[in-house]
Amino acid sequence: MSSHHIVRDDQEPALIIANGAACSSELLGQLLEWSPLVVVLDSAIERVIDLGIKVDVLLGDFDRGFDPEIYKIAQYPIEIVYTPDQDKTDLEKAFDYLIERKIPAVNVVWATGKRADHTITNLTNIVRYRNLLKIVILDDHSKIFLLPNRFEKWYTAKTPISLIPIGVVNGIDSTNLEYALQNDTLTMGYRTGSSNSVAKDGIVTITHKSGDLLLMECID
Amino acid sequence: MSSHHIVRDDQEPALIIANGAACSSELLGQLLEWSPLVVVLDSAIERVIDLGIKVDVLLGDFDRGFDPEIYKIAQYPIEIVYTPDQDKTDLEKAFDYLIERKIPAVNVVWATGKRADHTITNLTNIVRYRNLLKIVILDDHSKIFLLPNRFEKWYTAKTPISLIPIGVVNGIDSTNLEYALQNDTLTMGYRTGSSNSVAKDGIVTITHKSGDLLLMECID
Repeated sequence: MSSHHIVRDDQEPALIIANGAACSSELLGQLLEWSPLVVVLDSAIERVIDLGIKVDVLLGDFDRGFDPEIYKIAQYPIEIVYTPDQDKTDLEKAFDYLIERKIPAVNVVWATGKRADHTITNLTNIVRYRNLLKIVILDDHSKIFLLPNRFEKWYTAKTPISLIPIGVVNGIDSTNLEYALQNDTLTMGYRTGSSNSVAKDGIVTITHKSGDLLLMECID
Repeated sequence: MSSHHIVRDDQEPALIIANGAACSSELLGQLLEWSPLVVVLDSAIERVIDLGIKVDVLLGDFDRGFDPEIYKIAQYPIEIVYTPDQDKTDLEKAFDYLIERKIPAVNVVWATGKRADHTITNLTNIVRYRNLLKIVILDDHSKIFLLPNRFEKWYTAKTPISLIPIGVVNGIDSTNLEYALQNDTLTMGYRTGSSNSVAKDGIVTITHKSGDLLLMECID
């Protein structure tokens, strides 16, 4: 059975390939290993095709004189989704598409790097998809996701953990972090929880009462 | 007169080379052309030396078994500033150092790319230096600075302009932008002014009443 005929139950995370800096082929290979539904944003298709990846959905406003129709044969079968709405980014439109298809989770690559406005918008706009779609953004140095009000995960000692508030986050408590938080408030631009780390092998707990808090697992 | 003996009046912008992804040698060359005071953060010195750049100040906590003393001869004269404070990033410490020296302005490169936590922290923490230091962060795709409450600048038509609120920004008005803002509120994560552009050749005016608003001039 070729990868063109994978039967999916749409419960596994999809993969969105956005239009920022490319990640390593190793990271991309790991994410493709589970044959996810692959959604590519707009002109990124040109770079994705060069890597020999089968694309399932091509989505964008195609506003740069770029003709998506040529991929209908080369990537058959492919769904082409034309999204002209100028009030949303292509990445947001791809999230909306997955929610519409009732896909519960997605990994996103190539969403960082290159333009700083795209990077910061892509990283911070995931907060509005709380309870709608489980989103993880990955690049060669980072794994980023929105925290639920109570978060627990097993980590090895010294794992770098950065807590980035999108706006103001109140009532933050932690266990098993090097710099413990106790009913703390973090405010973007003024007081963030960047460059913390796991104290010892075991469960890390992070809870917060209000606001949007991103967790970033990053390595140099 | 060699570059080792430049007499500066410290009124020109200094240059901080941080520890993220390197920019193009073209951008770095343009910024070095005016013989700025060059401040390098921590182990980035190793990459900077390889480029044959004369460094004036090496600043960091040097917490990775790295010995800054070896640069005292190779980069003579060089000031080595040991900053062990764990509550601030090396970039913030470098800003504090420049403020202490009464230097009014700084360009920053290598502050983006690589780790997403460092990128987002570097970009957003500049807001707390309002009225203390005029900071511009540059990379190969982006030029980023904090807006004063009233901002006016001449731009050519179609220049991409992104307005990124750090938290909530109220009472925003604009003239000569493609998508005009009128007493608007922008909120990070929920409503940003990313991917706007200049309507026609001429002055762009952006005013806001409260909050911290970044302007990003970005190109693909």
